Parts: sequence; C-alpha cells; structure tokens
Amino acid sequence: MKTIGILGGMGPAATVDLFDRIVKATPARRDQDHIPVVIVNNPAVPDRSEAILHGGDDPRPIMLDGLHRLAGMGADFAVIACNTAHYFLNDLRAASRIPILDMIGETAQVIRREHPAVERVGILATSGTLAVKLYQRALLGEGLSPVEPTEDEIAQMMDAIYGEAGIKRAGVTESARRQLCEAGKKLIERGAQALILGCTEIPLALKDGDLPAPLIASNQVLAQAAVRTALR
Amino acid sequence: MKTIGILGGMGPAATVDLFDRIVKATPARRDQDHIPVVIVNNPAVPDRSEAILHGGDDPRPIMLDGLHRLAGMGADFAVIACNTAHYFLNDLRAASRIPILDMIGETAQVIRREHPAVERVGILATSGTLAVKLYQRALLGEGLSPVEPTEDEIAQMMDAIYGEAGIKRAGVTESARRQLCEAGKKLIERGAQALILGCTEIPLALKDGDLPAPLIASNQVLAQAAVRTALR
Repeated sequence: MKTIGILGGMGPAATVDLFDRIVKATPARRDQDHIPVVIVNNPAVPDRSEAILHGGDDPRPIMLDGLHRLAGMGADFAVIACNTAHYFLNDLRAASRIPILDMIGETAQVIRREHPAVERVGILATSGTLAVKLYQRALLGEGLSPVEPTEDEIAQMMDAIYGEAGIKRAGVTESARRQLCEAGKKLIERGAQALILGCTEIPLALKDGDLPAPLIASNQVLAQAAVRTALR
Repeated sequence: MKTIGILGGMGPAATVDLFDRIVKATPARRDQDHIPVVIVNNPAVPDRSEAILHGGDDPRPIMLDGLHRLAGMGADFAVIACNTAHYFLNDLRAASRIPILDMIGETAQVIRREHPAVERVGILATSGTLAVKLYQRALLGEGLSPVEPTEDEIAQMMDAIYGEAGIKRAGVTESARRQLCEAGKKLIERGAQALILGCTEIPLALKDGDLPAPLIASNQVLAQAAVRTALR
C-alpha cells in the first residue's frame, strides 16, 4: 500500500474534506485496512487566483516546501487540494521528488468515461482557474465542450467563496449555497449537461442532486484517483 | 503561530474529525489566518485496547515513528487522536522530540472548570481506556466522581465502535448510535450528571443534546487546547 501525501491549506476546510473523501472511498473493515496518509496543511500559501490575475505573491515556493516535506514524511505521491493551484502543476512536477496527480485532467476523463451522453460541460470555479482555462483545455482535450460562466456569474461565485458570507470566511452559509446554485442554473440554461465543481470549496456547499444536471466534484474524483493509485 | 502535529490513523475517521474541529475552532477570516497543521495518519498502529487487554502488538514503535515524522515536518507540538493511546503517553513523551498535549487530563479539567455544578461524571470509552482507568484517575484528580459502565455496557460500546455495524467498520450507523445512547442513558440513571465521550469515534455518532446531560467530547476539548496552544 502506498502512502498518499496531501498538499493542503488551500483552504483548510477543503483539505479536511479531501482527507474525509479519501477515508470514505477506501474499502476497509478496520483501521488497519486504511491507507497511510500524510498531510501538510500550510494555510500561508499565497492566494492562487491573486497570483495569477493580479501579480500577487508567488505561491510556488511554499507549495514546493510542502511537497518536499510530504516526500520526507514518506509520501509516495501527492495530491493538491486546490484546483487553481494546478496552474502551477508543471513547475511543481518538475521540482518535486514524488509524482503529483492531476485533479483537472482526472476530472475531465471521469466525465467522458462515466457520462458518455454528456457533450457540454459547465464549469464552476474561481476567477483564476477560469482565466487560465484549466478546465476549458482539459475538456477540449477529451472532446467535450466547455460552458463558461459570465463575468457576473464569476463575481457571484467568488463572493460565495471569498466574500463576507463566503465559505472561506464564514463556512457553508445559505447565501453561499444560493449563489452557487444560481450560477450553476445559468450554465444549465445555456446548455450545460453536467457541471464540474472545480474549486475544492464548492463541494462543501453543493451536492449531486442539488441541480437538474449531474455535479462532478473535482475533489471526489481526486480522492478516488488517490485511493486507486495507493492500492494499485 | 505554532504548527500543530496530529498523530492520527487511530482510526482515520476520528483523525478527519479532529482536524475538522481544529479548523472550525480557529478564529479566521481567510485561509492565511489559519494554523499550520501537519498530520501523520498511519492506520497500521496496532489496536490499543488489544495491546492493553490481550497482549496484542505494542503500538508504541509506530506511534513514536509518527511523532518523529511530525517533528521532522516542523510540528511544534503534537496531539494524539485516540484516547486509549494515552495509556502510553508517559513513554511517548519521554521519547518524543516535541511536547504532546494530554487529551484525558484536558477533558477532566474542562469539566471541572466549565461545569462547576457537576460532581459525578459518566465515561463512554473503549474497554482498554476503562480497564486502565485513564478517565477514572483524571476525574478523581480533579475532585470528580467517575460513573463507570458495567461489563454489558462496555460490550455494547465496543460493538458500536468495532462490530459489524460499528463506526470503524461501517461508519455512523443507526444501530451504533442507538447502542451508545443506551449506554449513556444507563450512566445517567446511575447518577452521572455529565458524560465524557472518551473515545474519538463516539463523537462521530453522539452530539451534545442527544441525551439529558451535557456530553463532553474529548476530541473537541483537544481541538480547542491545540488551537489555544498554537496561538499562545
């Protein structure tokens, strides 16, 4: 059994959630059947969207420090509990001593494989993830058409994640849930047949069944990929 | 801000829960306000009750390896997400390079301080924790009287934690919840004015308000002590 390393802190609640999904996705009848997991939850990583869009502090040095610490603790491979951080995946892979799974690529592949009737896929994500087209490119690579949120819808999602009553600040509030539902509905109205929950905070508030289209939680896909990789 | 180290895996779901309680107990308005946490979740630690009661494998070497890895990752102090493991606390403290908080002692102190009218305290815990009188001694040390479960009630709790429909095997099932409620009610009938949830799996199923006496979750006490220590 391999040891999973979680590079977390981006944010901490999303890290708890990914860890929880990994434990629940593991076939186990007693503690000793579970997969070893090591976690570096360093919330000091500079905001990824800020770095991408507004020249904020470079998050790579602290992320790399975390990857080195995970390797030093015995992690055989790493997962990163933040979609936006995947913008830096190639740089991190080049400098890391352990392999890093790709939450974005895995999510696009799962949609193509498990939802074969779906052609148009809506993306709920941060402004940073959307601006650098992480999911748009991954979906096109799988022959799927991205349905993107408008500027207004992006502002609404960012408020749900970062605002006064947003998930990072106030936990899962009713207003954050409503804002995310509204943005999702607009994407469905514009033809999305499935929606990617492409920010690890979003699945804290939205669950499959909440909207009239399948919701694919990127962190659930990553948890399942991590369990599969550890047990392989 | 100090870095919290969580020695986990005993079991994994209880480790997720302790991490979650630490994140929620932290006063924070954005990711970067949160406390750094490193976690070694090694579910291979031999069962602590088995070791104490039936000469099972010694869990100390793997626990110490975890503590050394936490120190190596930058943890300033450690918390152990398992009550029964605290039987070995003195040995672990003697060999660890970083201080270790005491969940048992903290819990007894919190009851005396926050529930001044309470004199008799019921203990919901594993057979191992009860046999070596971890909570009984800690309560007596605070001038409180322990109310202990009978052999039948202990068997019922162990089934709720380890059995076919138990929390470690099947998650939080209705039958596990019912068994723990019944054991708690018996302690209240025998005079307990408050109950310690003294196994980190029990607060996954029981919450304050579920029984007609205050329920003090040992892992919630530990989470608050960890946050206080990190921010001091």
